[in-house]
Amino acid sequence: MQSEQNKNRATLLISCPEKPGIISTVSNFLLEHQANIVQFDQHTTDPKAGMVFMRIEFELNDFEASHDKLHEDLQTLGNEYKMKWQINNKRDRKRMAIFVTKQDSCLMELIWRVKSGEIDADIPMVISNHNELREIVEREGIPYYHIPVSAETKDEAEKRTLELLEGKVDFIVLARYMQILSPEFISKFPNRIINIHHSFLPAFVGANPYVRAFNRGVKLIGATAHYVTNDLDEGPIIEQDVIRVTHRYTADDLKVAGRHVEKHVLAHAVAWHVDNKVIVHGNKTIIFT
Amino acid sequence: MQSEQNKNRATLLISCPEKPGIISTVSNFLLEHQANIVQFDQHTTDPKAGMVFMRIEFELNDFEASHDKLHEDLQTLGNEYKMKWQINNKRDRKRMAIFVTKQDSCLMELIWRVKSGEIDADIPMVISNHNELREIVEREGIPYYHIPVSAETKDEAEKRTLELLEGKVDFIVLARYMQILSPEFISKFPNRIINIHHSFLPAFVGANPYVRAFNRGVKLIGATAHYVTNDLDEGPIIEQDVIRVTHRYTADDLKVAGRHVEKHVLAHAVAWHVDNKVIVHGNKTIIFT
Amino acid sequence: MQSEQNKNRATLLISCPEKPGIISTVSNFLLEHQANIVQFDQHTTDPKAGMVFMRIEFELNDFEASHDKLHEDLQTLGNEYKMKWQINNKRDRKRMAIFVTKQDSCLMELIWRVKSGEIDADIPMVISNHNELREIVEREGIPYYHIPVSAETKDEAEKRTLELLEGKVDFIVLARYMQILSPEFISKFPNRIINIHHSFLPAFVGANPYVRAFNRGVKLIGATAHYVTNDLDEGPIIEQDVIRVTHRYTADDLKVAGRHVEKHVLAHAVAWHVDNKVIVHGNKTIIFT
Amino acid sequence: MQSEQNKNRATLLISCPEKPGIISTVSNFLLEHQANIVQFDQHTTDPKAGMVFMRIEFELNDFEASHDKLHEDLQTLGNEYKMKWQINNKRDRKRMAIFVTKQDSCLMELIWRVKSGEIDADIPMVISNHNELREIVEREGIPYYHIPVSAETKDEAEKRTLELLEGKVDFIVLARYMQILSPEFISKFPNRIINIHHSFLPAFVGANPYVRAFNRGVKLIGATAHYVTNDLDEGPIIEQDVIRVTHRYTADDLKVAGRHVEKHVLAHAVAWHVDNKVIVHGNKTIIFT
Repeated sequence: MQSEQNKNRATLLISCPEKPGIISTVSNFLLEHQANIVQFDQHTTDPKAGMVFMRIEFELNDFEASHDKLHEDLQTLGNEYKMKWQINNKRDRKRMAIFVTKQDSCLMELIWRVKSGEIDADIPMVISNHNELREIVEREGIPYYHIPVSAETKDEAEKRTLELLEGKVDFIVLARYMQILSPEFISKFPNRIINIHHSFLPAFVGANPYVRAFNRGVKLIGATAHYVTNDLDEGPIIEQDVIRVTHRYTADDLKVAGRHVEKHVLAHAVAWHVDNKVIVHGNKTIIFT
Repeated sequence: MQSEQNKNRATLLISCPEKPGIISTVSNFLLEHQANIVQFDQHTTDPKAGMVFMRIEFELNDFEASHDKLHEDLQTLGNEYKMKWQINNKRDRKRMAIFVTKQDSCLMELIWRVKSGEIDADIPMVISNHNELREIVEREGIPYYHIPVSAETKDEAEKRTLELLEGKVDFIVLARYMQILSPEFISKFPNRIINIHHSFLPAFVGANPYVRAFNRGVKLIGATAHYVTNDLDEGPIIEQDVIRVTHRYTADDLKVAGRHVEKHVLAHAVAWHVDNKVIVHGNKTIIFT
Repeated sequence: MQSEQNKNRATLLISCPEKPGIISTVSNFLLEHQANIVQFDQHTTDPKAGMVFMRIEFELNDFEASHDKLHEDLQTLGNEYKMKWQINNKRDRKRMAIFVTKQDSCLMELIWRVKSGEIDADIPMVISNHNELREIVEREGIPYYHIPVSAETKDEAEKRTLELLEGKVDFIVLARYMQILSPEFISKFPNRIINIHHSFLPAFVGANPYVRAFNRGVKLIGATAHYVTNDLDEGPIIEQDVIRVTHRYTADDLKVAGRHVEKHVLAHAVAWHVDNKVIVHGNKTIIFT
Repeated sequence: MQSEQNKNRATLLISCPEKPGIISTVSNFLLEHQANIVQFDQHTTDPKAGMVFMRIEFELNDFEASHDKLHEDLQTLGNEYKMKWQINNKRDRKRMAIFVTKQDSCLMELIWRVKSGEIDADIPMVISNHNELREIVEREGIPYYHIPVSAETKDEAEKRTLELLEGKVDFIVLARYMQILSPEFISKFPNRIINIHHSFLPAFVGANPYVRAFNRGVKLIGATAHYVTNDLDEGPIIEQDVIRVTHRYTADDLKVAGRHVEKHVLAHAVAWHVDNKVIVHGNKTIIFT
C-alpha cells in the first residue's frame, strides 16, 4: 500500500535471464538517469541459470526532462540483457473496464475501493450483458453499456465491446461476468484481463463451484483471481483466499459467504495489477507486495 | 477440547429422520435413565423432511448400574425412530493404530498430542511398510511393526496387519502412509480409517500434490483429513486448512510448509473422532465442535 | 446464516442456573405448545453448579393462535427455573439506528448487508454528529439526522437523539461514532448498543489505536465489536478479528487495512445480534453460530 | 525458507540514512568483491530523509580468498555511509541456547525444527531453572543444565549461566522461561535474546495472560515473539499470531490452544533470526521474508 503518492514516481518491472551484476547494472542505469530508488524488490528462480525479476519504484527529480531519455535508453539496455520490461508512471492512472452480469458485490467493492483511493485507477466504463446493475453504476457517475450476448450475437457483441474499449481502457476486470471471451478478444489484452473464479482453483474448475463444493462437503470455500488465457480457469493465479464453512451452510449460504472472499481476492488482485506489483512468468505470477 | 474429564461421562451420537418432538423424546429418555446432559448439539438438514443429527454428552450418576439398561433401551428407541446411534464411554479410551511410511511429522504430532492429553486416546501400535521411524516410535514405548508391502505381497501384508490389529485397535490413522488399502481391508473399518491428504481436496487428487501445486502457481497450499473409502481421496472430509505461500517457495519449500498444515489438520480430525464429535452422513461429515 | 426464512419462525434465548432435566423441561414445554424445534444450541459453564444457556429456533404451526399462550406460559416456567429469557419472532424485523461521524466504510457495509439480505433488519435512521455522510445515506432511502454534539450541547443532543429513537428502534450500532454516550443514554439500551473499536481489545483501549499500533510495531492489527457499557471499551466482546501487516505499512496504511477488518467484524456482530445468536452473561458473550 | 543451502553463501544486513544511489553503491561494492547477489530486499521509511534497510544474500565464488577483503572494505564503506551492518556466513551455523522452565511444547518445537532442517542452527545447550525437562532434552543428545534461581541466588545463577554460555552461544531463546533476566545479563546479548509471550502484545502484558484473556472474554488468543529489552514485554516484536476461541473454552482450554500458537510464532521468529531476516530499528523490526 502506498500513501502520499508522488506524481514524479514510476515503477519499472523487469524479467530477464540471471546474470552476475544485473542489480548493479540496473541500479546504476537508474542513478545515471536521475532516478532515485524508493523501493527495490527482486526475485531469482535460480542464481546460477534462472530468471531474475525486479520491481523498482523510483522518483524522477525532473520528470519531463528525464522521462523520454529513460525510455529510450531502457530499449538499449533491455536488448542487451534480453529483458522484458515495462515502465509505468504514477501520473498516468490506469483505466479499467469492469465487465459484469447480474451480481453486484465484486463490482461495488471495486467502485468503493476506487473511491476510497485504495485502488489507484479510473473506471471509464462498466459493460454488462444484462441491464440489472445499471442504476447502481450510473449513480456513481460511471457510464454503463448494455451489450447482450447470445451464441448467435457473440462475435458482433465482442466487436462492439472492442469499439467501446478502443483507446479508453488499459485493462479489464471480469467481476462475475458470465460469458467466455473468445481467443481473439483475449489476445488484445494479454495479461490484462483479470477474472475472479468462485472457488479455490484448481478445485472446482468450471461452472457452479458452490454447488459442487456443497456436494463434496468441503470445510473451506475459496476464490481465485487470475489472468485470463484461452484455457478456461487455467491462467496465471494472482491471488487466492478461503473462508471456513461448516455443515450448517446450505449451498446458498456458501454463495453468500463466498461473495465476501471473492470481492476481497479480486480487489487485492486488481490493486496489485494497478500498482504494477505483478509480473507474469509462464503460467505463474511473481507478486511484489 | 475437554478439561476435567469425568469417568462417568459418555457421548451419544444419533442420526435419524426429522420428526416433531425428537429432542423431547431423546432428552426425556436420558433423564429417565439418570443421565445428566452436559452438552447438547444438534443439526437439522431440513426441519420438514430432512435428517436430524445429535451429539449429547452426559454423565451417569451410577455408571455401572445405569449403563446396561441405557444400552438396552436405546435399542428399542432406535428402532422406533429409525436411528443410527452410537454410545461411547469416556472411561473406554479409544485405541488408534498409526500407519506410516517414512515421514515423521504427522506421526510425531499425534504422539505428542496423546502425551499432552490433547488427544484422549491410546496408541497400541505403529505399523509401517518401512523401518526408518522405528527408533522415534519405540523410544516413546510404543510397539513398532514393520510390514513391507509390494504388489506381490500386498494381500499377505494386509492379512498380517489385520492379525496385528485384531481386538487391539478401534480406529486407524494413515499418517502419510504411502500405500492404498484394499476394499476388503477398508470394509473392516467403516468410517474408522482417517487419512491425511497433502492438498486442499478436491484440488490435486492423487499423487505429488505439492509438485502439481508448485506447477500451477497456487498462492495457498492445503491439507485435508478424511475418512477412507474405496474411492481414492473421495471419502467424507473431516477437516481442511491452508497456508499462504509466495513465489519464493520452491516445490521443496511447499512440502516443508505443507507438513505443518498436514499435521495440524490431521491432529484436529483425530481429536474430534476420538471425542465422538464427528457424524458421517452420506459423503459428508457433521462436526460438533 | 439462514436462507429461506420462515415467517412462523422464532428464537428463544434462555440463561438459567444448571438443573438436571432442564433440556427435557424446555423441549417438552415447546412440544406442548406446538413448537417444532429447528435448531437447538446449548452451553453449560459447569454441569454441577454452573449456568446453562440455550438458543432454540422453532416454528409455530399456527403462529397467531400459539404465540400469546407461549409467552404467558414462559413467564411461569421462567420464574420457576430463575430464567432470563427472551423470545423473538422472525416476522418482527429488528430495527437498528446507525450512529456515525465521518467515516463511511462501516456504515456502507451495514447498508449493503441489509440490502443483500445478509443482515435481516431494517435501518429506520442514521444519526450523525456531522453532515458529511448525508448523501450516501439518503440516496439509499434512509433518513439522516444531523445532531451536532459539543461539550455544552451534549445533554441536549442526547435528549434529541432519544426523541428520534423513541419507539422506532430496537438497537443501536456505533459505526465509528466519535462520541462517548452518557450512562443515562446507555441505560436505555442495555446490551443493545454495539460499538466497533478499531483495535484488538484489550490492546490499545482508548483513542488513536492505529497510531499506537504503528508505534508499537505490531505485526497484526485488529478490531473488536462489543456491547457498550459505562466502562469505555470494556463491554462484553461479541467478535474480534485481525489482519497481518508488515514493516511496510505506514500509520495511514494501517488505517486503510484496518477499515476492512472493522467493517467485517462489526457486520458479523450485528448479524448475530439480529439473529438472536448472542447471550450476554456478566461481561462475556455466548455466541451460538 | 531456503532449500539447497550453499556453503559459499552469506547475508549482509545494512541500516543507514537514505542517500541517493545507495543501492548502486552497495551492489557495485558486492560486484567488485566477486559477490553474486541471490536475493536483494530493501525497505525505506522515507525516500527523502528516512532510513534505508537492506538484506542481501549473495554467493562468493572463492569464499576463502574474498571473505577477509570484503569485511575490511565494508568497514570503510560503512563509515562513509554511517551504516550499521552485519555479515553472516551460512557455513558458520548459529548456536542457540534454549532457556526453559517446565513447559515442553516450545522447546520441543525448536528441537524438531532444528532436526528437520527448518531452523538452520545448532543447540549446544538447554538451561533450565528446573529439572523436569532433562530427559526429553538429553535423549536428543543435547546437554541440559539445571541452574535453580531464587531471589537470593539470582545474581549467582546468572553468573553461572554466563560462564556456561561464554564462547558457545550466539543467541538465546526464552522458550517459556519463567524468570526475568537482569539488565546486566540482557546487555550481553543485545537483540539476541528472543522471548515468547503468551498473548497478543500489548494486550495482557505481564503474568497470567490466559486467565486474564478468559476473564475478559476475548474471541481470539495470541502469542508474541520479541527481542528482550529491560522493559518487560516491551521489546521489538518479531512475530505475532492468533487463533480463534469460543465461549466453550475454559481457561485451561485457552492454555492448550495457545501453546500451538506460541510454538509456531516462536519457531518463525527463531528461523528468521537464524536466517538473518530481521533488522531491529528503534523498538521495531523489519522482517525480510
